Amino acid sequence: MANEEKFVEDIVDQDDDFSKWYNQVVRKAELADYAPVRGCMIIRPYGYAIWENLQRLLDARFKETDVVNAYFPLLIPKSFLEKEAEHVEGFAPELAWVTRGGGEELEEPLAIRPTSETIIGHTYARWIQSYRDLPVLINQWNNVMRWEKRTALFLRTSEFLWQEGHTAHRTLEEAEERTRQMLEVYRSFAEEEAAIPVIAGRKSENEKFAGALRTYSIEAMMGDGKALQSATSHNLAHNFAKSFDIQFLDADGQRKYCATTSWGMSTRMIGGLIMVHGDKSGLILPPRLAPYQVVIVPIWRKDHEKAAVNELVDRVEKMLKGKVRVKVDRSENTPGWKYNEWELRGVPLRMEIGPRDVQNNNVMLVRRDNRVKEPVSVDGLEIRLPQLLDEIQKALFQRALEFREQNTHTTESYDEFKQIIAEKRGFVRVKWAEDSKAEQAIKEETRATVRVIPFDQPEGGVQGKCIYTGKPATCEAIFARSY
Amino acid sequence: MANEEKFVEDIVDQDDDFSKWYNQVVRKAELADYAPVRGCMIIRPYGYAIWENLQRLLDARFKETDVVNAYFPLLIPKSFLEKEAEHVEGFAPELAWVTRGGGEELEEPLAIRPTSETIIGHTYARWIQSYRDLPVLINQWNNVMRWEKRTALFLRTSEFLWQEGHTAHRTLEEAEERTRQMLEVYRSFAEEEAAIPVIAGRKSENEKFAGALRTYSIEAMMGDGKALQSATSHNLAHNFAKSFDIQFLDADGQRKYCATTSWGMSTRMIGGLIMVHGDKSGLILPPRLAPYQVVIVPIWRKDHEKAAVNELVDRVEKMLKGKVRVKVDRSENTPGWKYNEWELRGVPLRMEIGPRDVQNNNVMLVRRDNRVKEPVSVDGLEIRLPQLLDEIQKALFQRALEFREQNTHTTESYDEFKQIIAEKRGFVRVKWAEDSKAEQAIKEETRATVRVIPFDQPEGGVQGKCIYTGKPATCEAIFARSY
Ligand SMILES: [Zn+2]
Ligand SMILES: [Zn+2]
Repeated sequence: MANEEKFVEDIVDQDDDFSKWYNQVVRKAELADYAPVRGCMIIRPYGYAIWENLQRLLDARFKETDVVNAYFPLLIPKSFLEKEAEHVEGFAPELAWVTRGGGEELEEPLAIRPTSETIIGHTYARWIQSYRDLPVLINQWNNVMRWEKRTALFLRTSEFLWQEGHTAHRTLEEAEERTRQMLEVYRSFAEEEAAIPVIAGRKSENEKFAGALRTYSIEAMMGDGKALQSATSHNLAHNFAKSFDIQFLDADGQRKYCATTSWGMSTRMIGGLIMVHGDKSGLILPPRLAPYQVVIVPIWRKDHEKAAVNELVDRVEKMLKGKVRVKVDRSENTPGWKYNEWELRGVPLRMEIGPRDVQNNNVMLVRRDNRVKEPVSVDGLEIRLPQLLDEIQKALFQRALEFREQNTHTTESYDEFKQIIAEKRGFVRVKWAEDSKAEQAIKEETRATVRVIPFDQPEGGVQGKCIYTGKPATCEAIFARSY
Repeated sequence: MANEEKFVEDIVDQDDDFSKWYNQVVRKAELADYAPVRGCMIIRPYGYAIWENLQRLLDARFKETDVVNAYFPLLIPKSFLEKEAEHVEGFAPELAWVTRGGGEELEEPLAIRPTSETIIGHTYARWIQSYRDLPVLINQWNNVMRWEKRTALFLRTSEFLWQEGHTAHRTLEEAEERTRQMLEVYRSFAEEEAAIPVIAGRKSENEKFAGALRTYSIEAMMGDGKALQSATSHNLAHNFAKSFDIQFLDADGQRKYCATTSWGMSTRMIGGLIMVHGDKSGLILPPRLAPYQVVIVPIWRKDHEKAAVNELVDRVEKMLKGKVRVKVDRSENTPGWKYNEWELRGVPLRMEIGPRDVQNNNVMLVRRDNRVKEPVSVDGLEIRLPQLLDEIQKALFQRALEFREQNTHTTESYDEFKQIIAEKRGFVRVKWAEDSKAEQAIKEETRATVRVIPFDQPEGGVQGKCIYTGKPATCEAIFARSY
């Protein structure tokens, strides 16, 4: 607000210090703030409005697949977490514990949920009796807590917001199908709503969810070439069903274990938006998720011009209401100040309205992504604006896709691999034998890990040797450093 | 689900045991469940769908008053809570404390927010510099925790969902105005969307929010005559601003304290819906908040009728999509079983479609509230259905209003007052001198408290004596037992 520095000139160059650029944009655009509690964040109204758009659009996509929402408790008894051995091992270091409540020491400590497989597993065991109760397709929008040492706004905070879907099925095949279906929902959401091209595929054993049979993810390349895991979908097979005794009576009279899945996307995605689309002037928001799709800046020099300009501004605002998300900047700042401000905040289109425009019954539109100007007649706005927003949405996706392609390398030499990781940025696609120890060794040597084993593999299978072990390769894998 | 008992015949009579009736309806209609964590609840999909409708409609009303959403952290440092003396005294007995995180004992315990005035106060102090930054009008939708000894689903649980609005203003007058404005948003929401008549007014000193100058509330009468506080709006004046140093530089060059407000409505409101509208067959949901507004039950006896009936069912479903929230019950249960089931779950309208209807191009509509049947031609459905839903919405409000009027008593005698509270149910409206000790004494003697001092007072002021102290009355107050 008032006394904070907001000027674009203060933003560091992306190429000089990407993470400083990121932090400055988040703070100056008023997306988020650090909280007085270590590692936690405050999501400010402008950032939260992005989250609301994301929620609305993603939730609608879930519901199209028959998912319903519910709410499960924040606190999880210690004994629940201990029921699934891999799960507790994975999350134990990050847990926050409630030990006192209502003035008394608790007999059993309660963890703030880091994720809800355990308490939901316990509940499903009570709810599910027969095959007629299946599938159960439930999602919740909630907060979770994972105590983090190193934190970054949106990307890694102790508390964050997300959705977690939890489904239970009659067969392993059906669970696998649902796991893949939800990954596809995330893929299409990321590409169509967030304009972020992603690589969909499977996680390596080292990187999969604690307690899952198999984890799928979508991975995106950020503006500095690092990878961001943007959503995950886990096939939990019978693991949690066995730990929590989720059984059903099948049509054949046999009691059987359910196969379960879980899947999530979080406020991290907002960090992804910033790092994929932003430029030296700040944020660039894809129109589908932008809180404001168009900002109107009224311009006049002389007092007698003011009334006519404002009259047209009001008329245009009214005309667009309910059709396009419009902000009119009626503050007392100069037009130039407003241009900088709203470029920094990433509004996809600026509409300038001045005395000349009043005369011509025109407005001037300026795209945030490429600065191209286009005069449009007021009467043509209702048609042209949605088109332009659509063009911007597609252009952002295309630009990000080209950036990713330019920064995706292939090599058959581990020496070259190390050189690429150290000197260039981006993804390295290599032949790989899926060896966990080799992956660990590469991580220690280069800080790069397998981000994803893409669904998209060479036809007829992979020929040749693993880049590290020299063993026959079983797949192609994408390595990168990551957030 | 399958093995749970669902039949209406099992529901206890409201008059015999209202709270047992309430619990049975909540459980059988699958609105909510107790969680394995003491005092916490699971909101099941059908209950959560009511909450989603409530959120959507209430949020839209907030946004019409320029309120924006944000998100503040779950955890609050102990020292923050201690800054406002009355506030910490009020909430201390109900706090849950995080004492360990990331494998270490915390230096300072962190409370799970019981409400967020303190952490938001701290944040506003950093954000607000000048009068140009005011007003700040922020709301958040979130979970809160108040450790409760006695719990009841939706009405009193240790964790619950709500929204909490927090505003900061330049003047005390503006804060008072906003406090009243938000109470009016709640009043109109309760009456127009939830069909619950409420009495709007001021809380007594004994019942106001810990740390507020003044608390307003809306109070509703439940089916057993007890009161439910359905939403509150607090004028915090300079109290929190002084504790958290929320100051601004005014246009006159002076540094001044902001005046702040807070206001909230919670999942309690779902409990209110149930207890205001329900009857011996179970839930009755007001159409505006009902997850399904219409349930279609296909009926046939002979196999050759099935295809034609289903064809019409599909056609009607498609015709109404996006206009009315429709559920088609295609399960294999009998029509009679379905009638009971969806009456129990409170769907406002049932649509029966059988072979005779196919012949006549008709459907049969049956209202949940009064069981009145009405045949409607398929071609007339798009017009008649919304009308009928509107009539039901109004009828529910009217019935609840009449019930409240029938069960609101007045008296000038304290003996009679005691008798009414003990023997009849409902509200007692009396002359009152606003004496806190007298209120405490009445509470101990009768378990009734001042629910609200209505805005609606006799013209020209109250004449006569306080019912308890005999001192000159300053107002009329509503006493009742409450949830
Ligand atoms: Zn972590
Ligand atoms: Zn309480």
